[in-house]
Amino acid sequence: MNVKVRPATRGDCKEISRMISELAVYEKMPEQVKITHEELERDGFCANPFFECLVAEVPEEHRSKEGFPIVGYALYFYTYSTWKGRSVYLEDLYVMPDFRGKGIGKGLLSKVAEVGKKKQCVRLQLSVLDWNTPSRDFYAAKGAQDITASEGWRSLRFVGQDLDNLANEAPKD
Amino acid sequence: MNVKVRPATRGDCKEISRMISELAVYEKMPEQVKITHEELERDGFCANPFFECLVAEVPEEHRSKEGFPIVGYALYFYTYSTWKGRSVYLEDLYVMPDFRGKGIGKGLLSKVAEVGKKKQCVRLQLSVLDWNTPSRDFYAAKGAQDITASEGWRSLRFVGQDLDNLANEAPKD
Repeated sequence: MNVKVRPATRGDCKEISRMISELAVYEKMPEQVKITHEELERDGFCANPFFECLVAEVPEEHRSKEGFPIVGYALYFYTYSTWKGRSVYLEDLYVMPDFRGKGIGKGLLSKVAEVGKKKQCVRLQLSVLDWNTPSRDFYAAKGAQDITASEGWRSLRFVGQDLDNLANEAPKD
Repeated sequence: MNVKVRPATRGDCKEISRMISELAVYEKMPEQVKITHEELERDGFCANPFFECLVAEVPEEHRSKEGFPIVGYALYFYTYSTWKGRSVYLEDLYVMPDFRGKGIGKGLLSKVAEVGKKKQCVRLQLSVLDWNTPSRDFYAAKGAQDITASEGWRSLRFVGQDLDNLANEAPKD
């Protein structure tokens, strides 16, 4: 199958939004998705975008059974390591179930690595859920190090009232 | 002590570079630091900077015993959650040992939260090492959730030859 991996356009945001919800169902946290396609359009297609995105598009004769031409996406952004420098972070990598096993996920991942290298990034990072063995195996086979295991890094998060409280206690200029 | 928290300037990069090394010693991985102050200048003070940074400055009479006026920093950047939207990520928060216990770390953290809220960020995330109990307690006391514990997120990383191999296998346009 001739799958095209290309940068997302503003017009793809409804499709990306649909797949974000599909991925959240797979990750067993569908109720977590609050983002809308309008927000994706605003935040990804502005002067200093908060993210970049690639989509995998199939020819008309290979569309999904629902008729979707976009069957996968990789959403990423640039981060920074104060030890190593420029990095790229893969927030989401998703391929619709009927299109798995055809190298589409690998193509999206490789393209993100290529885009990152062009920006002089020396790391590609991502997060996986501990029970998600297929994904962990997929990344491990390609050489990913599990730095939660090897170095002991843990992820922390402030949200809601705790974030508001912090912000409200900021020293005045 | 009258500590001023202010945005870093290009001229602060040597001081920031010094403290990045001090933090890496504290984190028991001093050999990991490859970044130079020239790279910080290039990557943080360009048109689309890869990071932003705040510094904590003390008045002349309170300088460190080595004579440093900058005694702490918070380095952060913007990320994106496909579930919730705009987020801010705190890469480093550091206060020199002689200046701890004076609320400087809290001031830097709060200011990052405030800056993030002004950019409509709904999350502040960071990573800590599992053995670093003082830092984990510091963040937990302010309401941080440990999402490695609660949701099972693990961090993965591609570097070096593995990253190059991925990039070299990217589908051609």
